[in-house]
Amino acid sequence: MEKKRTEISELGEFGLIERLAEGLKIKNEGIIKGIGDDAAVYDVGDKYLLTSSDMLLEGVHFDLSYMPLQHLGYKAIAVNVSDIAAMNGTPLQITVNLGLSNRFSVEAVEAIYGGIRAACDEYKVDLVGGDTTSSHSGLVMSVTVLGTVEKELITYRNGARKNNILCVTGDLGAAYIGLQVLEREKQEFMANAEMQPQLEKYDYIVGCQLRPKARMDIIYELRDLNVKPTSMIDVSDGLASDSFHLCRQSNLGVAIYENKLPIDKQVYETAAEFSIDPGACALNGGEDYELLFTIPQDDFEKIKNHPDIHTIGYMQSASKGKSYVTGNQDVVELKAQGWRHF
Amino acid sequence: MEKKRTEISELGEFGLIERLAEGLKIKNEGIIKGIGDDAAVYDVGDKYLLTSSDMLLEGVHFDLSYMPLQHLGYKAIAVNVSDIAAMNGTPLQITVNLGLSNRFSVEAVEAIYGGIRAACDEYKVDLVGGDTTSSHSGLVMSVTVLGTVEKELITYRNGARKNNILCVTGDLGAAYIGLQVLEREKQEFMANAEMQPQLEKYDYIVGCQLRPKARMDIIYELRDLNVKPTSMIDVSDGLASDSFHLCRQSNLGVAIYENKLPIDKQVYETAAEFSIDPGACALNGGEDYELLFTIPQDDFEKIKNHPDIHTIGYMQSASKGKSYVTGNQDVVELKAQGWRHF
Repeated sequence: MEKKRTEISELGEFGLIERLAEGLKIKNEGIIKGIGDDAAVYDVGDKYLLTSSDMLLEGVHFDLSYMPLQHLGYKAIAVNVSDIAAMNGTPLQITVNLGLSNRFSVEAVEAIYGGIRAACDEYKVDLVGGDTTSSHSGLVMSVTVLGTVEKELITYRNGARKNNILCVTGDLGAAYIGLQVLEREKQEFMANAEMQPQLEKYDYIVGCQLRPKARMDIIYELRDLNVKPTSMIDVSDGLASDSFHLCRQSNLGVAIYENKLPIDKQVYETAAEFSIDPGACALNGGEDYELLFTIPQDDFEKIKNHPDIHTIGYMQSASKGKSYVTGNQDVVELKAQGWRHF
Repeated sequence: MEKKRTEISELGEFGLIERLAEGLKIKNEGIIKGIGDDAAVYDVGDKYLLTSSDMLLEGVHFDLSYMPLQHLGYKAIAVNVSDIAAMNGTPLQITVNLGLSNRFSVEAVEAIYGGIRAACDEYKVDLVGGDTTSSHSGLVMSVTVLGTVEKELITYRNGARKNNILCVTGDLGAAYIGLQVLEREKQEFMANAEMQPQLEKYDYIVGCQLRPKARMDIIYELRDLNVKPTSMIDVSDGLASDSFHLCRQSNLGVAIYENKLPIDKQVYETAAEFSIDPGACALNGGEDYELLFTIPQDDFEKIKNHPDIHTIGYMQSASKGKSYVTGNQDVVELKAQGWRHF
């Protein structure tokens, strides 16, 4: 009798995680949240401790032919800090596990650590340990971040309420379209090694891909504005996919307005070059690491003049589903393609 | 002008870590210990929080041709829990980052998680999150463990005192010689696919390699015996190398007695088969995940009848160096070969 073989692609990343987490029960007192949010939550008495972990693999998450090692080090920290931001928390410390093949010299590792240190300084995080080992198969970086949050400030994915306003920071789609530019330049370089990459006019979008920021600035500003989001997530898989997490966990639907999506001019122009719809880049591009959150309508006054917070829709009842209101006011079903790892 | 290229092998793993950690200053209040012990230490008020992280890469740390996936999942957790034990702490939660190539089916991932869950149950640890992603290059497992310890119980590497007794749990060299058996059987299988591996007579040593235990049992027993080690480390790189960490951080030397080393009969017999010195297996084999610790002489009475704690030497002044007293009472310099990852 043959053993059953189910391909991971049949379930997808989220389906796989759901299946693996099935029936898991928390055993230890004080663990408030396990799998299912941007970070796990542990009660340490006067505050909550947050833990999150992300892994970047060469050839899957980055391509060293256009990713400078310093930027890679920086990005590995920033994407982890972003998960702490998404819980409305403050990052504290990181551990970095590094797998290195012998094509990496000490100087190359120092370049990676240069980026790690720059991110640690920027986000006021301490590097407290990790594991450095050889790898037979490219560069592997696995980072775990710990953070803290005052108990009354913690923000989960499941706290959105009907008619809450949906907000997003910064702009969307840049990291995705920046990646398309880098891939195109790489192909051209491989076809003709004398070609010099022309990246000046793409500086913003390429920067978003290579060196994304964690939006800790917004977290501190929301505290100053006395705004506590009702739910929050960071945009790593794409606006549509990540808004679906808020919907599912808050048991709600959502309406997002195409003409409210914050999209940079360089994204519009470059998307046109590639004949891609810039709205699709914003909805499904991913890797923006912007914050997507909901606030009560009463808080609208507090954020409406913030230059970097954009109101893009609102939460509606689950029975109304997920709507995308196009530029000419057609209401269509919002679909998430997200980032397919498998 | 050519850029300088230093090979990682010139520095070795510890030299590289030292260089990367150079000049790092802790910025955040409450972080008591960063790089340099089995776990980082953070003060959460009434107790300390411990963090440690380890990564296992296919082809470097394990070979799937003889490592069953369940055992791999178990081992990845056990080696991390062992780091918490080495701080005299209690494990609390883990995050698991998994990189999977498409040769892995959902059923294969479930087998890995079967082992993870078994270890979580055994060590009373909660799986609270992680990242699952595709890999172009074999299986990658990166685990981070959090633990806690009462402040008065925490044990660092640097607390050993002159004339403290050096103790080790269990026995040594088994995981190393078990690996030699597995490698030999693999070679024979590759030469003749009809050969069936004969592993029954090697069950203990093969088990030590494939499914090592974290010695949490000893931690609980030491508490019951009211013994607080003055320094502690887990034996991952090999007894000699790991005793050197205690020496360096406590600014002491050590004397270890060959005829005191706990070595299982199966290790003796199998070492003879391979014409290897069993003492060398015990000193430099590594991957034992036993606890190596020091106690004041006054505590000797409390542990002397414990069947699984062995006194193997004592700490001496740094000026006396590191001594190995051979079976016929020759005193030679103790040398550490450890595990070379690079």
